[in-house]
Amino acid sequence: MNENIVYVGSKPVMTYVMAIISAMNDQDEVVVKARGRAISTAVDAAEVTRNRYLTGLESTVTIGTEEMEAEGGSTRNVSTIAITLSKSPEA
Amino acid sequence: MNENIVYVGSKPVMTYVMAIISAMNDQDEVVVKARGRAISTAVDAAEVTRNRYLTGLESTVTIGTEEMEAEGGSTRNVSTIAITLSKSPEA
Repeated sequence: MNENIVYVGSKPVMTYVMAIISAMNDQDEVVVKARGRAISTAVDAAEVTRNRYLTGLESTVTIGTEEMEAEGGSTRNVSTIAITLSKSPEA
Repeated sequence: MNENIVYVGSKPVMTYVMAIISAMNDQDEVVVKARGRAISTAVDAAEVTRNRYLTGLESTVTIGTEEMEAEGGSTRNVSTIAITLSKSPEA
């Protein structure tokens, strides 16, 4: 069984598209998560998957903020995104 | 009256935070829009506004894809985000 969360980082978009397609193969729902600069890549990966490979997927998006510990014990805030891709009921 | 759409580009995050706060001053709802790499900045601007300045705002997020005309007449796809920030009914 695949994990149903795909964490997006700094690899090429298609890396994450393949991970989403693979996870969608045996699940009805996958959550694509990213932080900071990778947020744009996460949206790209979700949109490429929806437009080119698994048309008809629905997306629900939430944004938030996480506190990250920086070196030296200080903290800084980083924005987060979670894109839930799910097969529509009629598909 | 302010425009109720804030377009996010490549300026510093606080530029857009100020624009959102200003627009929220005379409206109940502001839509923060961005494309491509600016998507991360749009999420940052919305989150900083919500966490530091106008706490209690609700956010609804949609993502999409737009076709852009590149030089030479070819087209390429770019991801988009629209973050609707609204005052909660009880606020």
